[in-house]
Amino acid sequence: EKARRRRKRRRLRPCALRQVEVTVGELGLGYHSDETLLFRYCSGRCNTRRHNYDITLEHMRKAGLIDSDELVRYSPCCRPITYEKDISFLDNSSKYHTVQEVSARECRCT
Amino acid sequence: EKARRRRKRRRLRPCALRQVEVTVGELGLGYHSDETLLFRYCSGRCNTRRHNYDITLEHMRKAGLIDSDELVRYSPCCRPITYEKDISFLDNSSKYHTVQEVSARECRCT
Repeated sequence: EKARRRRKRRRLRPCALRQVEVTVGELGLGYHSDETLLFRYCSGRCNTRRHNYDITLEHMRKAGLIDSDELVRYSPCCRPITYEKDISFLDNSSKYHTVQEVSARECRCT
Repeated sequence: EKARRRRKRRRLRPCALRQVEVTVGELGLGYHSDETLLFRYCSGRCNTRRHNYDITLEHMRKAGLIDSDELVRYSPCCRPITYEKDISFLDNSSKYHTVQEVSARECRCT
């Protein structure tokens, strides 16, 4: 019951930048490194940011005025608008790497 | 077979501004008007615009490093970045209305 409440709260959280500490290896980019870093990402809902555009597009899709084969989005997406320029680290063979645009810097409902 | 091919082609189209001619009533904003206008919207795929951020976020979600209750997007969204400022029309009782940000002006994979 408690877990369900926590889950519900999390699902309702608005779009924001969040962070998690991970090793470089856990990023899944193919590097073997135990160095840790903060990975920042965008997460959450954008329900309060709907424009007339979104209401109209949803209506038109549901009324069949826009073909169901077309990929349209009638809710804003919580996405990065800027990224951390790059991250640098040593892999487990002491080789130096720089990778770009891994971590988010600012999020927005767009 | 032909219809299926057409469907597939449409599904693979990249993110772009498209338009459809509708009556104001068909916009679904609650106005009764037979005036027609061009409604412009964003539609299509953004697969080619994935950052390291998206690869990492997808990996971390699938590896269980980000909770499955969180709403995260690891593909860019095809969304308007600017809107037509406003549209004006007469309803069927000859009343004048202006509605803002109904139609998209520019789309982007964000």
